[in-house]
Amino acid sequence: MTQEREKICIIGSGNWGSAIATVLGRNAARLPFCNDEVAMWVFEEQVSLPPHNTAANLSDVINTRHENLKYLPGITLPSNVRAIPDLKDACKNATLLIFVLPHQFLPKLLPIIRANVHPSQCRGVSLIKGLDFDSKTKLPVLISKSIEDTIGGGFKCGVLMGANIADDVAKQSMCESTLACEFGTDQLNEMTRQLFDRPLFCVRRIQDVSGAEAFGALKSIVALGAGFADGLGLSGNTKAALLRVGLLEMAKFCSCFFEGVEQGTFMESCGVADLVTTCYGGRNRKCAEAFARLQAVESEACDVLWSDIEKKMLNGQKLQGTLAAKEVFFALDSRSLLNSFPLFRAIYEIAFHGRAVASITEGIRTGTELPDSKP
Amino acid sequence: MTQEREKICIIGSGNWGSAIATVLGRNAARLPFCNDEVAMWVFEEQVSLPPHNTAANLSDVINTRHENLKYLPGITLPSNVRAIPDLKDACKNATLLIFVLPHQFLPKLLPIIRANVHPSQCRGVSLIKGLDFDSKTKLPVLISKSIEDTIGGGFKCGVLMGANIADDVAKQSMCESTLACEFGTDQLNEMTRQLFDRPLFCVRRIQDVSGAEAFGALKSIVALGAGFADGLGLSGNTKAALLRVGLLEMAKFCSCFFEGVEQGTFMESCGVADLVTTCYGGRNRKCAEAFARLQAVESEACDVLWSDIEKKMLNGQKLQGTLAAKEVFFALDSRSLLNSFPLFRAIYEIAFHGRAVASITEGIRTGTELPDSKP
Repeated sequence: MTQEREKICIIGSGNWGSAIATVLGRNAARLPFCNDEVAMWVFEEQVSLPPHNTAANLSDVINTRHENLKYLPGITLPSNVRAIPDLKDACKNATLLIFVLPHQFLPKLLPIIRANVHPSQCRGVSLIKGLDFDSKTKLPVLISKSIEDTIGGGFKCGVLMGANIADDVAKQSMCESTLACEFGTDQLNEMTRQLFDRPLFCVRRIQDVSGAEAFGALKSIVALGAGFADGLGLSGNTKAALLRVGLLEMAKFCSCFFEGVEQGTFMESCGVADLVTTCYGGRNRKCAEAFARLQAVESEACDVLWSDIEKKMLNGQKLQGTLAAKEVFFALDSRSLLNSFPLFRAIYEIAFHGRAVASITEGIRTGTELPDSKP
Repeated sequence: MTQEREKICIIGSGNWGSAIATVLGRNAARLPFCNDEVAMWVFEEQVSLPPHNTAANLSDVINTRHENLKYLPGITLPSNVRAIPDLKDACKNATLLIFVLPHQFLPKLLPIIRANVHPSQCRGVSLIKGLDFDSKTKLPVLISKSIEDTIGGGFKCGVLMGANIADDVAKQSMCESTLACEFGTDQLNEMTRQLFDRPLFCVRRIQDVSGAEAFGALKSIVALGAGFADGLGLSGNTKAALLRVGLLEMAKFCSCFFEGVEQGTFMESCGVADLVTTCYGGRNRKCAEAFARLQAVESEACDVLWSDIEKKMLNGQKLQGTLAAKEVFFALDSRSLLNSFPLFRAIYEIAFHGRAVASITEGIRTGTELPDSKP
C-alpha cells in the first residue's frame, strides 16, 4: 500500500477552526508529504462587507480576502486554505479530518463525511471541547470515541488540546499544545504531529487520548468557577484554591468515568497549563465573571442571563462551560456522586439553579465558624 | 511525660510573619491545649507615627496599637500576640517555633534559640521560602534541615507552604495551605495542623517536607520568568507554557538534588496552586515585570536595577526569587546540569547577565524558523 499525499480537511471555520487553519495551511505548504491545499468546510452564512455593508457569502470572503471576517477578523489566512461550503466537496478523499465545530452538529455531518473521505487511509483529530452523553446509560462519552464509532471501519480519532487561546495562536504568540493519538504506526503519529507543530506552536504527542480530551472538556467548568470568583472580586489565593480543587475534581471525574487516564497527562499542555490559561484568560471565565455581576442586579432567570451574555460577548460562538457543567452534573447525579464533587456541584447550581454566586467558596470547603476564645 | 501547654514563638515579624500571627493568635486563644499568648520576636526598628511623625519602637507600636504599621498596615493583630524585641525572652520555654524571616539571619539567631526553648518538647515549622547552599559541596540544602542540624538534639522542623499572599491571608480571604511535617506522633502532627487551620485558612497536612519546601523556594524563580513575560506583554498562552515548563524544571531539580520528593505534592496547595498565585500575583512577578520594562530603557547594571526595584516596590522586604535564581544556577553549574534546565538558566542570565528579556521564550523552546513553502 503506497501512502498517498496527505489531504487535510478542516471541519469547521469558527474562531479556533480559522486559527488552526493558519497553522495547518503553513505546514501543508511546507511539508513534502502533504498536498498544498487545505480544505476548510464552512457552514455558509452571510456577512456584510465594509464600507457599504454589501452582503456576501462567508466562504467567498475567506477565499478572496483570505480573512474570516466574522470569526477571526484581522488575521490573514494562508492562501492555500480554501473555504468550501459543500461538505461532500470539502472532505472528498481526505486523509486527515480536523474536527473543530460545536459537537451538536456531528450527527448530521458524520454520515456525509464517512461516504466521501479516502476509503482506506483516513484518520481524524478532534479539537472539540466537550463531552457527549449516552442517553441510555447516562454515562459521559468522549467525542473522539463517538466519531470513531459513527464513522466505523476502524477509523481512528485523536485530539489536539492545550493552553491555546485561538486569537493568540493566530497572532503567533508562542505556545504549546498536546496531540494525543494512537494511529497505529510511529510514522503516522509523527506525521500528524508535524502537521501541527510550528516554531511558535510547540506540539508534543502523548498516547492518552481519554485524559487529554476529558481535561479539555472539564476545565471549562472550572473556568466558570474562576469567573465567578473574579466577578465577586475574590483574592488570588482563593482563585488558586479553586483551581487546585477543580484539578482534583477533574482527575476524580476521569477515574470514575473513563479508563486509562494517566496522571502524567496533567503535566502536559492539555493539563495544568490549559486550566491556567482558561481560568485567567478564556471566554468561559469572562462570561462567568459577567454572570456574577449581572446576577447581583438582575432578576432574570439563569438561562436568560446566559443567553444574553452569549449574544453580547461571544459574537455567535457558544459557551462550552455551561453545557459541560450541566452534563457533568447529570452524570454525577445519576451515579449519586454529587457529594464527592462539591465544586462541580456548586458551579452548576450557581449557573442554573439560582444558588448565590458567593457560595462558590463552599465548593472549595464548607467552613464552620469557630469561637475566638476558649469556652 | 506530661505534655505542657503549647507555647508558640514566631521568629520574625515582617509581612508574612505578621499575617500568620493573626491566624496563630486567634487559634491560640481558642484551642485548649495552647497558651493564650503568642510571642512574636521583633527585630527592633524605629517607625514614625502619624500624625506628627513621632519616632517609636516597632515592638511598642505592635503591643499598644495591635498593628504592624510598617509591614502589615491596616490589619488589627489579635491582642494576645505580644511583640518581644529580645530573642531570649521571646522564645523562653517555647514548644513551637515558627520561623518566618530572611534565612540569612538564622546562623546568628539559632544558638540563642537553642539555649532558651523548652529543653525536651520543642519543634519548629518554617515558613521561609528559600534554599541554603553548602559552601563545600555546593549542593542545595533545605532550610528546615539546616535548622534541625543547627539546633540538634533530635529537633524536628516542618514547613508551611501554600498559595498564600500575606496581605490576603491577613484580610481573611479564603485560601488553602499545606503543612508538611513528621513530628513523630499523630497527636503532635494534628495539634500543629489545628494551630494553623481556620475556617478561611484551610490547612492540609502531608509528610513530604522536602517537596513542599523545595517547591516553595523554586516557584519564586518561575515567578520571575512570569514577570518577564508580563513585562514584555506576552500572551496568556505563552505564560501558561512558561508555568508548565517551570513546573517540570522544579520537579527535575527536586529529583536531582533531594530525596523522597513525592509526585502527589504537586497537587497540594504548596504545589501547583502556589505556583499559579505567585506567577499571577506575587511580588517576585511584580518586580520582574518592572525589571523587564526598566531594562528596555536603562543602561544600569542588573544588580543596580534590582536593588532600585526592591527599594521602590518592597518597603524594606527582600526579593526571594533573585537570590534563589542565583543559587540554583550555581548548583546546576557545579553539576554541569545547565543544559537540562533551559528556563532556570534563561531566567538567571536575564536577571544577572544582561541577556535580553525577550529571550525568555528560548527558555521554553528554542524555535527554528521554517520555510513556508516546499523546497
